[in-house]
Amino acid sequence: MKNDLILRAARGEKVERTPVWLMRQAGRVLPEYRKVRSKMGGFKELVETPEFACEVTIQPVDAFDVDAAIIFSDILVIPEAMGLPYQMIEAKGPWFEKTIKTKEDILQLRIAQPEDLQYVIDAIKLTKKELNGRVPLIGFAGAPWTIFSYMIEGSGSKTFSKAKKFLYTQPNLAHLLLQKITDSTINYMKGQVAAGADMLQLFDSWAGALSPSQYDEFALKYISQICDAFKEVPFTVFAKDAHFARRKMGLLNCDTIGLDWTMDIAESREMIGNTKTLQGNMDPCLLYSDNDTIKREAIKMLQQFGPHRHIANLGHGLYPDLEVDKVKLFVDTIKEYRF
Amino acid sequence: MKNDLILRAARGEKVERTPVWLMRQAGRVLPEYRKVRSKMGGFKELVETPEFACEVTIQPVDAFDVDAAIIFSDILVIPEAMGLPYQMIEAKGPWFEKTIKTKEDILQLRIAQPEDLQYVIDAIKLTKKELNGRVPLIGFAGAPWTIFSYMIEGSGSKTFSKAKKFLYTQPNLAHLLLQKITDSTINYMKGQVAAGADMLQLFDSWAGALSPSQYDEFALKYISQICDAFKEVPFTVFAKDAHFARRKMGLLNCDTIGLDWTMDIAESREMIGNTKTLQGNMDPCLLYSDNDTIKREAIKMLQQFGPHRHIANLGHGLYPDLEVDKVKLFVDTIKEYRF
Repeated sequence: MKNDLILRAARGEKVERTPVWLMRQAGRVLPEYRKVRSKMGGFKELVETPEFACEVTIQPVDAFDVDAAIIFSDILVIPEAMGLPYQMIEAKGPWFEKTIKTKEDILQLRIAQPEDLQYVIDAIKLTKKELNGRVPLIGFAGAPWTIFSYMIEGSGSKTFSKAKKFLYTQPNLAHLLLQKITDSTINYMKGQVAAGADMLQLFDSWAGALSPSQYDEFALKYISQICDAFKEVPFTVFAKDAHFARRKMGLLNCDTIGLDWTMDIAESREMIGNTKTLQGNMDPCLLYSDNDTIKREAIKMLQQFGPHRHIANLGHGLYPDLEVDKVKLFVDTIKEYRF
Repeated sequence: MKNDLILRAARGEKVERTPVWLMRQAGRVLPEYRKVRSKMGGFKELVETPEFACEVTIQPVDAFDVDAAIIFSDILVIPEAMGLPYQMIEAKGPWFEKTIKTKEDILQLRIAQPEDLQYVIDAIKLTKKELNGRVPLIGFAGAPWTIFSYMIEGSGSKTFSKAKKFLYTQPNLAHLLLQKITDSTINYMKGQVAAGADMLQLFDSWAGALSPSQYDEFALKYISQICDAFKEVPFTVFAKDAHFARRKMGLLNCDTIGLDWTMDIAESREMIGNTKTLQGNMDPCLLYSDNDTIKREAIKMLQQFGPHRHIANLGHGLYPDLEVDKVKLFVDTIKEYRF
């Protein structure tokens, strides 16, 4: 590996500078992505075609010179592999025709195997070959609670009241489904590692919908199982808005915890402890600012995290209307800074 | 006042039992509300007709026997009174035809006066008369940052990226607008008190979109001005998802801080201190549960808050599909409990 900064930072080893990558770095912010996308039928066709997934995965490594690539895919490939196909509806987001309502529905779901997601496995293999050791490749999956929410709600939601109602009224069935998702996710991520992923990240996008005690019971329990299954590569958990779970996340068997921009850096370090690398956590909206503000705030963030155990990133994905030059300036500022 | 429990709890005085009311207690969860609503042209007509606003304000006092009424209205009456009319679109939410883009747009806005919101003032007067001292009447307004967001975005948003972009790129204009909203809000709430409101609450619905430092600069600064303007009646600040601002909220010149269900009770008490009453914070989805679970969790919440300086409530508004009987059971459980 020519640039293994991010792997070393994740393991808590010394690094010459803070590594940086950006959530949603492959995507609509890049004109070259929009060009590839316009040739395809849509987002899902892109995800399911290894050559194109590989191409758009590498685009931000060329455009921004970030310290990692992340395989272009979607967290909803898992419910689909388990038996619930979805559509990605332009300007609306994902939509599932069939959702989970009964025990029978859960029993009918398959435990996904890597072969069920061969297109992702192939995309990882191809990307590893094309990257040829330039930077590590990150594999990822959605965390069980977030995947569960989509399977019950059938789409995004403001309140997640259907998914949460399921937790409150049918906790045993919820656990049955969450375990199936967990088993599928472990199989899938094992397949990603076997295909060459150098690092893994779990995204719990809807963590903030749950109370602390429900998060323990229905989310952390399964995240913990997944963390325990991976020793081979550094593992990151990013639970957006789960401010209340930071102390417990510090006890997970993983290397890195992602922070969103509402989480104070010093407070998070105190809560999570010194045995984890922290990832994040700039507000993506900072990148709408003028250049001086972007530079000043990026450096302030670096100083707040300090030189060790930090992987610079945003606190959420890039927004599609951000300007490429501003994104590049943010990355460059991080890469040029020395403690 | 026949039942002044909530006023005493807000002021930190001793109470015989914990008082309880529910955010969105007046609304779609009640069949009698839906009946009144079906007679009207829509939500806004209801808000703007004092007789109907009064009727639906008192409905939950009859139906649930809660310890306070809250005037039936909307936080968006303020932007409208300042010069930006809105529509409430069924199943979609509020929508503003005109939004704020330039300095000129801001300069054209009026500072609202109570007379601009005479229908709310009249509704408060009428409701006070009809309540006849049964329970206190709560007046309310949106916090400046939340109102600002609607004025820039023109509707709700997932990311509030337009409103936040405005903060990052035009901070001086943002402060100009926030100050106009703050002045309007103080005038409006002064009018509510003059009309008879016994208590006031500020709702910062979109607090969680901001980083801690932006929240200080663009939100807390103005909330603080509003708190400072009211000594006459107990004042509550509820900033949803502003977990990061709890220590600073403990320093506000107000009586009560609202908590959402992601905020741990003991941790919040430690952060906010003992000089504030805490309000909240049950997950509304608990009310989908069976009766035993509702009772058990309601009592657990009471015990965690303890007997002093607590006003029981949800951590957010009631959802429209909750059953009346479950809501009543939650309220009854709180009212029957003795420390």
